[in-house]
Amino acid sequence: MLEYVQLNEYKALMYARKLKHLFPAEAHLCCTEIGEGNLNLVFRIADKLSGQSIIIKQALPYPRVAPESWPLTLNRSQIEGQALKVQHTLCPDRVPKVHHSDPIMALTVMEDLPNHMILRKELLARKRYLHFASQIGAFLAGTLFLTSDFSLTSQQKKQQMVQFTNPDMCKISEDLIFSDPYFDAETNRFNPLIEDTVKEIWQHDPLLLEVAKLKHHFLTHSQALIHGDLHTDSIMVTEKDTKVIDPEFSFYGPAGFDIGTLFGSLLLSYVSQAGHCADLRERNDYQKYLLATVEEIWGHFTEQYEDLWGKCVNERTTAIPGTLDHVLHELLEDACGFAGCIMISRVIGLVRAADLESIKDPNLRAACERMALNIGQKLILERKQIRTVGDITSTAMLAADMI
Amino acid sequence: MLEYVQLNEYKALMYARKLKHLFPAEAHLCCTEIGEGNLNLVFRIADKLSGQSIIIKQALPYPRVAPESWPLTLNRSQIEGQALKVQHTLCPDRVPKVHHSDPIMALTVMEDLPNHMILRKELLARKRYLHFASQIGAFLAGTLFLTSDFSLTSQQKKQQMVQFTNPDMCKISEDLIFSDPYFDAETNRFNPLIEDTVKEIWQHDPLLLEVAKLKHHFLTHSQALIHGDLHTDSIMVTEKDTKVIDPEFSFYGPAGFDIGTLFGSLLLSYVSQAGHCADLRERNDYQKYLLATVEEIWGHFTEQYEDLWGKCVNERTTAIPGTLDHVLHELLEDACGFAGCIMISRVIGLVRAADLESIKDPNLRAACERMALNIGQKLILERKQIRTVGDITSTAMLAADMI
Repeated sequence: MLEYVQLNEYKALMYARKLKHLFPAEAHLCCTEIGEGNLNLVFRIADKLSGQSIIIKQALPYPRVAPESWPLTLNRSQIEGQALKVQHTLCPDRVPKVHHSDPIMALTVMEDLPNHMILRKELLARKRYLHFASQIGAFLAGTLFLTSDFSLTSQQKKQQMVQFTNPDMCKISEDLIFSDPYFDAETNRFNPLIEDTVKEIWQHDPLLLEVAKLKHHFLTHSQALIHGDLHTDSIMVTEKDTKVIDPEFSFYGPAGFDIGTLFGSLLLSYVSQAGHCADLRERNDYQKYLLATVEEIWGHFTEQYEDLWGKCVNERTTAIPGTLDHVLHELLEDACGFAGCIMISRVIGLVRAADLESIKDPNLRAACERMALNIGQKLILERKQIRTVGDITSTAMLAADMI
Repeated sequence: MLEYVQLNEYKALMYARKLKHLFPAEAHLCCTEIGEGNLNLVFRIADKLSGQSIIIKQALPYPRVAPESWPLTLNRSQIEGQALKVQHTLCPDRVPKVHHSDPIMALTVMEDLPNHMILRKELLARKRYLHFASQIGAFLAGTLFLTSDFSLTSQQKKQQMVQFTNPDMCKISEDLIFSDPYFDAETNRFNPLIEDTVKEIWQHDPLLLEVAKLKHHFLTHSQALIHGDLHTDSIMVTEKDTKVIDPEFSFYGPAGFDIGTLFGSLLLSYVSQAGHCADLRERNDYQKYLLATVEEIWGHFTEQYEDLWGKCVNERTTAIPGTLDHVLHELLEDACGFAGCIMISRVIGLVRAADLESIKDPNLRAACERMALNIGQKLILERKQIRTVGDITSTAMLAADMI
């Protein structure tokens, strides 16, 4: 195609038909739009004869809800396709395979995951996934170590930094995670019942200072090619498998941001359980499982990271005693602070946590939201005192109990 | 020109003649090669009638000394020309004006500074320049603040980061400042008389860990468009004026690196005085002047930086109490550590400090070099305890006295 055309089911099917090698000549294709997203169209094209299927994901030039609100760069589709390819090279089992990218149509044709479920929904249904922590830990270690200066030559890394320069998507994160939730911004959408707590946050100078430091960290630390949006909506699971999708926010940023986004997202699920499960014992059990998952992810992450570190030959400083401990300690501290920012932003800001939004009773929801805000603040303010991942989970547990 | 041709005096004159508007039609041009550098050719083209003159600086594809050693990117010439233009916009009086850039010929045609002297030589001759500290302080504040995320929009900043991606020159700094001096690398060139001290450094694990952290900082912190090589050879002075030249190492890096390079360079002059001035009182007086200059630079820098900060409207976080103090404190700590790295690298590594090299008596030189290594180590190891610039100068004074 020579210019951008927005796909519908028919056009998506026609597009897939033209791509060689994807389906056999005798294929009997059908197409269904399956996306629920606001920013992208997602189509599944399946061959009824063979059962084979693929996904076409196309970026929209504006949000479907509130199209007049702000224009979105179509370039994010190319970033996403390239990030998936890099991640697939580093962790082949953890991301869908890309079959085709089309920068003009702003679309990516990729492996379908028909049996995978969105992790966020599974957690709200209190499902447990035995392999998730080890698989996501390995994904984090692989992507965050192997794209860093410890693994790449500085020339390779700087070239990738240019390739993954993603200013428009970064700007969305900068505004919606680090800026707008901390003052009376038009973009904010919070439950009126928690207005008092939100206003306290806006007046809390020591908190605002720490968030400013974390924002500056996000703006200036080019440590690794990060996913950039690794909440539980960007993770799909089956009993045996974990896949990470949607890296359209990918750029060279602070490595602790992905870990922090994931921790923050799991802790949002943690605080939401009270709104979804009336059985106290069942709820407590599942909340323990969620905190144990945070700890296990960090455990598997560090194990894999240490393993890759030990094999590293590119960078002499990796052999100096204490370097690895220092790097892991900084990652944990950053992850802790970023987790706090994610939690606060998803309660006060424009992009809502579906875990909380789906709690019907506004008072119950407000109680859960206050818990999230309290944990978020503690994680931000106390991140310099964090020594182990257990400090993060016990901080979360204590802060939740205080509400 | 369609391809790179190495200039000589005749070719440089012909090149200048073809450029419109630089000289009047009746000009009587003559050309002299004035460069002493190893990596570039520098020609002065003067009109004998009007007295007007310009400089043509051309990058060489290899070092003049040891051409087989390593190839050099010609792209550095373009980076230099662009950096001069940005710096000229921000601090018009502090850098030579660029008249013309030629990416294929890898050359920049710029304002001549016929009456300016290289600062390093002036300091070894114990000259004092009354306006230097305030003028370089303003240059540092202007360039480091106005190219940062505090001043630019994040989109502008990310665009400049791409423009100033400078992997080959960064690699030289990474290797020669942060890596090679800390092990028995082939590139090292140190006085055999200090071999014992050098070997102690190679075995000093806590120091190696701190240098590894600073190296990682240099590799990953994209805070501002830095000069990248701001030692006293890159600064030219008259009684009334200060000009900063040669930003071919320019890239988006840690803002503290420029300040640290300058401090380290002034402290190298400090330790060298013993090798150049036999009169103890005169020497002590001048050393005090050098330390006072370090303190004054920081004072003027912070004053100007605070002024620009106060005028900033782009970034909300600048209004949060404590942010400015935090930023300045981090800058000082980073500057302290980088100053230490510069001092050690210029004693052990390939790129030598002319201040020390020019001391003829090898034993006297060794004593000064040990002083430099001792100060450098202290600045690196104690940077986290630094609270004021006075802590840096007193650390330097104490460490020098211990030798």
